[in-house]
Amino acid sequence: MLRFCALLFVSFFTLSAAALADEGMWTFNNFPSAKVQAAYGFRPSAAFLDHVRKAAVRDAGGCSASFISPSGLVMTNHHCVVGCVGQLSTAQHDFVQSGFYAKTAEDERACPDFELDQLTQISDVTAKVQGATAGKTGDAANKAQNAAEAQIQQATCGTDKTLRCDVVSLYHGGIYDLYRYKRYTDVRLVFAPQYNVAQFGGDPDNFNFPRYDFDIGVVRAYENGKPAATPDYLRWSANGSKAGELVFVAGNPGSTSRELTMAQLEYTRDVTYPEQLPALAEYRGILEEFEKRGPEQLREAHEIRFYVENDFKALLGRQRALNDPAFMAQKAAQERKLRAAVAADARLQRADGSAWDQIARLQTLRQQLAPRYNAVTGFTFESGLLGDALTLVESAEERTKPNAQRLPEYTDQALIGLEQQLTAPIPVYPDLEETTLGFAFTKTREVLGTDDSLVKKMLGTEAPDDLAHRLVSGTKLADPAVRKALFTGGQAAITASDDPMIVYARSLDPDIRAIRKDYEARITAPSRAAAERIAKARFAIYGTSVDPDATFTLRLSYGAVKGFDANGTPVAPYTTIAGLYERATGAFPYALPESWLAAKPSLNLATPMNLVTTNDIIGGNSGSPLIDKNGDIVGLIFDGNIYSLGGDFGYDGTRNRAVSVDSRALLEGLSKVYHADRIVSEIEAARHS
Amino acid sequence: MLRFCALLFVSFFTLSAAALADEGMWTFNNFPSAKVQAAYGFRPSAAFLDHVRKAAVRDAGGCSASFISPSGLVMTNHHCVVGCVGQLSTAQHDFVQSGFYAKTAEDERACPDFELDQLTQISDVTAKVQGATAGKTGDAANKAQNAAEAQIQQATCGTDKTLRCDVVSLYHGGIYDLYRYKRYTDVRLVFAPQYNVAQFGGDPDNFNFPRYDFDIGVVRAYENGKPAATPDYLRWSANGSKAGELVFVAGNPGSTSRELTMAQLEYTRDVTYPEQLPALAEYRGILEEFEKRGPEQLREAHEIRFYVENDFKALLGRQRALNDPAFMAQKAAQERKLRAAVAADARLQRADGSAWDQIARLQTLRQQLAPRYNAVTGFTFESGLLGDALTLVESAEERTKPNAQRLPEYTDQALIGLEQQLTAPIPVYPDLEETTLGFAFTKTREVLGTDDSLVKKMLGTEAPDDLAHRLVSGTKLADPAVRKALFTGGQAAITASDDPMIVYARSLDPDIRAIRKDYEARITAPSRAAAERIAKARFAIYGTSVDPDATFTLRLSYGAVKGFDANGTPVAPYTTIAGLYERATGAFPYALPESWLAAKPSLNLATPMNLVTTNDIIGGNSGSPLIDKNGDIVGLIFDGNIYSLGGDFGYDGTRNRAVSVDSRALLEGLSKVYHADRIVSEIEAARHS
Repeated sequence: MLRFCALLFVSFFTLSAAALADEGMWTFNNFPSAKVQAAYGFRPSAAFLDHVRKAAVRDAGGCSASFISPSGLVMTNHHCVVGCVGQLSTAQHDFVQSGFYAKTAEDERACPDFELDQLTQISDVTAKVQGATAGKTGDAANKAQNAAEAQIQQATCGTDKTLRCDVVSLYHGGIYDLYRYKRYTDVRLVFAPQYNVAQFGGDPDNFNFPRYDFDIGVVRAYENGKPAATPDYLRWSANGSKAGELVFVAGNPGSTSRELTMAQLEYTRDVTYPEQLPALAEYRGILEEFEKRGPEQLREAHEIRFYVENDFKALLGRQRALNDPAFMAQKAAQERKLRAAVAADARLQRADGSAWDQIARLQTLRQQLAPRYNAVTGFTFESGLLGDALTLVESAEERTKPNAQRLPEYTDQALIGLEQQLTAPIPVYPDLEETTLGFAFTKTREVLGTDDSLVKKMLGTEAPDDLAHRLVSGTKLADPAVRKALFTGGQAAITASDDPMIVYARSLDPDIRAIRKDYEARITAPSRAAAERIAKARFAIYGTSVDPDATFTLRLSYGAVKGFDANGTPVAPYTTIAGLYERATGAFPYALPESWLAAKPSLNLATPMNLVTTNDIIGGNSGSPLIDKNGDIVGLIFDGNIYSLGGDFGYDGTRNRAVSVDSRALLEGLSKVYHADRIVSEIEAARHS
Repeated sequence: MLRFCALLFVSFFTLSAAALADEGMWTFNNFPSAKVQAAYGFRPSAAFLDHVRKAAVRDAGGCSASFISPSGLVMTNHHCVVGCVGQLSTAQHDFVQSGFYAKTAEDERACPDFELDQLTQISDVTAKVQGATAGKTGDAANKAQNAAEAQIQQATCGTDKTLRCDVVSLYHGGIYDLYRYKRYTDVRLVFAPQYNVAQFGGDPDNFNFPRYDFDIGVVRAYENGKPAATPDYLRWSANGSKAGELVFVAGNPGSTSRELTMAQLEYTRDVTYPEQLPALAEYRGILEEFEKRGPEQLREAHEIRFYVENDFKALLGRQRALNDPAFMAQKAAQERKLRAAVAADARLQRADGSAWDQIARLQTLRQQLAPRYNAVTGFTFESGLLGDALTLVESAEERTKPNAQRLPEYTDQALIGLEQQLTAPIPVYPDLEETTLGFAFTKTREVLGTDDSLVKKMLGTEAPDDLAHRLVSGTKLADPAVRKALFTGGQAAITASDDPMIVYARSLDPDIRAIRKDYEARITAPSRAAAERIAKARFAIYGTSVDPDATFTLRLSYGAVKGFDANGTPVAPYTTIAGLYERATGAFPYALPESWLAAKPSLNLATPMNLVTTNDIIGGNSGSPLIDKNGDIVGLIFDGNIYSLGGDFGYDGTRNRAVSVDSRALLEGLSKVYHADRIVSEIEAARHS
């Protein structure tokens, strides 16, 4: 699945030397319409681009979405709303398993923590940002960068909670753009199918095709307590797509690493992945077994296990790409070519030629500093109730400073979303919290060693599981009102608190800050400075004819409906509803919900179920609309095939495929399985308006 | 820990081009005494070698050991006897936690499944084995090889259960030697300390130094119901060792990969480890959480979790070595040097020059065939009750064939050990069996895919956990008498059985055999043929001045007591008992047993606790005696430091260290903490006899 998940920022093949047909996650202000016309005979107009941009929305939790009616109706994936579905569930009413449908407008239920962002404006702020850091290094450069970004955001969005301003670094610092959004925080659940059909085939079929998933979730954006007016929305295509047809994907790819230097890719291959993958796998094993404690634990761990399995598989695919010597040879050839072009230009060579070597030299120090930095910025201290406690402690201190002097996650802009997250009435499961925190402490000790000073402070004389138990069983932070009071109370409330989790967070915070500051001054700042020089050199040689690495901002990708070759076996671009029934064994994850078994006689089994297209997408694109050249919906992106996983490092148009639910299957299911007439009517009315 | 474990055959640094000082796991019939004399001024005599060889014994379960009295008393590690300790424990009497001490001879308790092998003779059978396969390829070569080995073993050992004959392939087929052993199968537990001090520091301190473990286990070999007469035994040194002193390790290193070609190392790095490590980590997570079900589950999963964590850490260290570009460059340089020498000799080049390329070409096919081969020869189908069932089904069929035509694990020689294992009264824990089998099924589906024909047959329409539950809850194989009856009953009993596990094994066996045969014909046979050619070429150029890769057979290593440099921090060669108490926080795994806390005032805290030496050892060496030039015990090998983990691929004398319990700490603990006077007296008497 393609959700761009907070747990790990995750997303096989061969690369051609130049930008390939259909390659590219293009920004809306630099879309290669001429290239599309040359390849497909259709030139997207400015009006087309504007319409699509306004109808597309970002789910700030890590997904993409789109308006599908003028009344704020939003289509995304089930696996993008499943967090909300789980939060609205109880042991008695588990909507993840049963599905959810708001029969009336009044039945639409507010998601506790959901933000939708509609991109309204892009403006270039490169000069301001780069000017602020010019001549500075290390911590001074980081502070200047943070201050500049905070000021730019503040100047445009102020503290208006209905706006969002992000300074986006494109081409790793080559361009800084200010992205201005309309922000919707009252988002209500309208429809979610049962997990068993939304993610039919589960982990074994994830990132595979042929595929048969009904992975849709429908929410609605509200403003002032009423459905938002959203005049820019996408219409349902009358006939769907056909093989070979030109299609677009508008969405928010989370992160790619195509512009990294060879030294950085090798570091990722040799150091990062070999540590990350087993840790993720171990946590997966813990969750699998935790779920067996009972039905309630199965329900509690459901969502996080999905993320972990999804991230694991995605990461494994990325590792395979980097472990493929042929692929790495191609990446090396690309780098040699660019460096040769730089070397051939004396001015460029003088200004930027040493940047690659500088990055390479940094990797040794990085390997030395990264374990402690990763520990304090990763899973252990950033998630769950301990993460909340540290955020409360840090935000209280940061808020005593002027906006421009704060850590970037505590600027006035950032605090809007942060406060929503911190105070949202999201259920907390102490047994799962304790299990996860105990694992995190154990892992941190394993990675850093028993004798590391942070580990000594972290554990004292306690065993990891005992410490986790003491903190989780003693804290009151599971209560959103307690978190809200501590957030609102600021420094005084934090200092006065005797909540054991807050006390613990207070004691660790100085160490965490020091480790983070050291790494960011010695690794992040010089890496960014070198990357900016590489970006400048690249612009000088290639211009902006190459798309920037993904940044979880709105992009447009073009491509065609097209099958692929799986190790000699041709795979057709469409599956059908009939295939869904054929694959159902009755045993999880191949068990269909009762409603689908009952509806079978009424369904047109020849209806296309899922389809593959050549669009260049990655994690974060989940929930993106798949649209035709009229701008109409022909599908709903929810995944990539197994060959798409190397897409983090490069696009291989011969085999990399995006996977969508077909728009025809969506309507067939909504009307005949779910009898979701209110929604179907709204879609139909919108289509004809 | 250095146990050579059945779960995975597991064992950072720089390599010099030539054989390094102290490098080498030498066979007793090719020991470089002259080299030792040159380096240390002492020349081990034939009598010294003979004495040490006869006093050393192998624990067939994956460890090393030695006789320490003329009455069959055997010293090895706690982590080598912990399997037996657990098997003799119950929910009421958990000797793993409480320790075990047989106060009288009558209290010594038979280990259900323990085999000790004393090497009595080595003879060269190269011509016979290589002659049998000459001119044959694929399946025919495998059959000829198996037949030749079966005949050689049979000719020397027959079906005498007190003998053991193994044909050992040295230098990957360059030399075939017949190893003849005296086999002891009545082995009784004499002494085991509490787990918490035997493995003080647990997983976090495993493969680390400074270290403070009391990792000793004492058993006794019996013959005809009486303590075995073992005139060749090692005496306790009166004074122990000192820094710089020459020391030897006699033991059975399990496996090394120093002679593999670059293509094979790259395959290991890029394909094998990236799959193995996360799978092991996931299983580890499952076990961690399984243990939390309750104290009995904690007890049940204890041993397997230790193996999994130990293997994981060892494998991670090996992966780091292969992910170190500098190390791989050195391995590549060594290969280039050898190939250049071969190319410079026209006769060698003609005969063997293409072997490296042939192995390189095989890796593509290997990658294609390995997932299914690994599935059928690995964890899922080789462990637990399903493993027993498949062994019963296969052995029944194989025993209908003449000895020389059987699969090698079912020759008359192999059946002696197999029958002991299969029928041993080892406790079976159905909840752990079910959890493990469910995981194994899930993993096999994940690796091969839902649509793989073996997976379809394996699961049918059942979910992995449901299938595991049906098989484990339905089978009677947990009863050793049932296994014995099925083994003894042969083909007729197997065919007649309606035990669900046997029925299931019968249905899968043909597929498993076919997959295995295909892989062994297309990968194993040609790989072995090419390796034999490389070995011949290597002999022609270097002779046997280089030790052969480890093969879990008896080897002798020499070295010195010596500290090392850990990233700039000098580490002294000895720790003390005082250090043990200083490290004890009271929280697991740094919690000392009550008996150690109570005994503290009586102990000489300055006694050396653990020590490091430069001996070249690896997994399987656990339990090896560390001896001085008099052949007397100065320590007990139980681990290597973190830098020893790359030793699988090459020895780095600057940092690779073997870790032992000091002989002085052993006596101090046995006498003053455990008051194990009977054992101490036997050791003392032996020392002075």
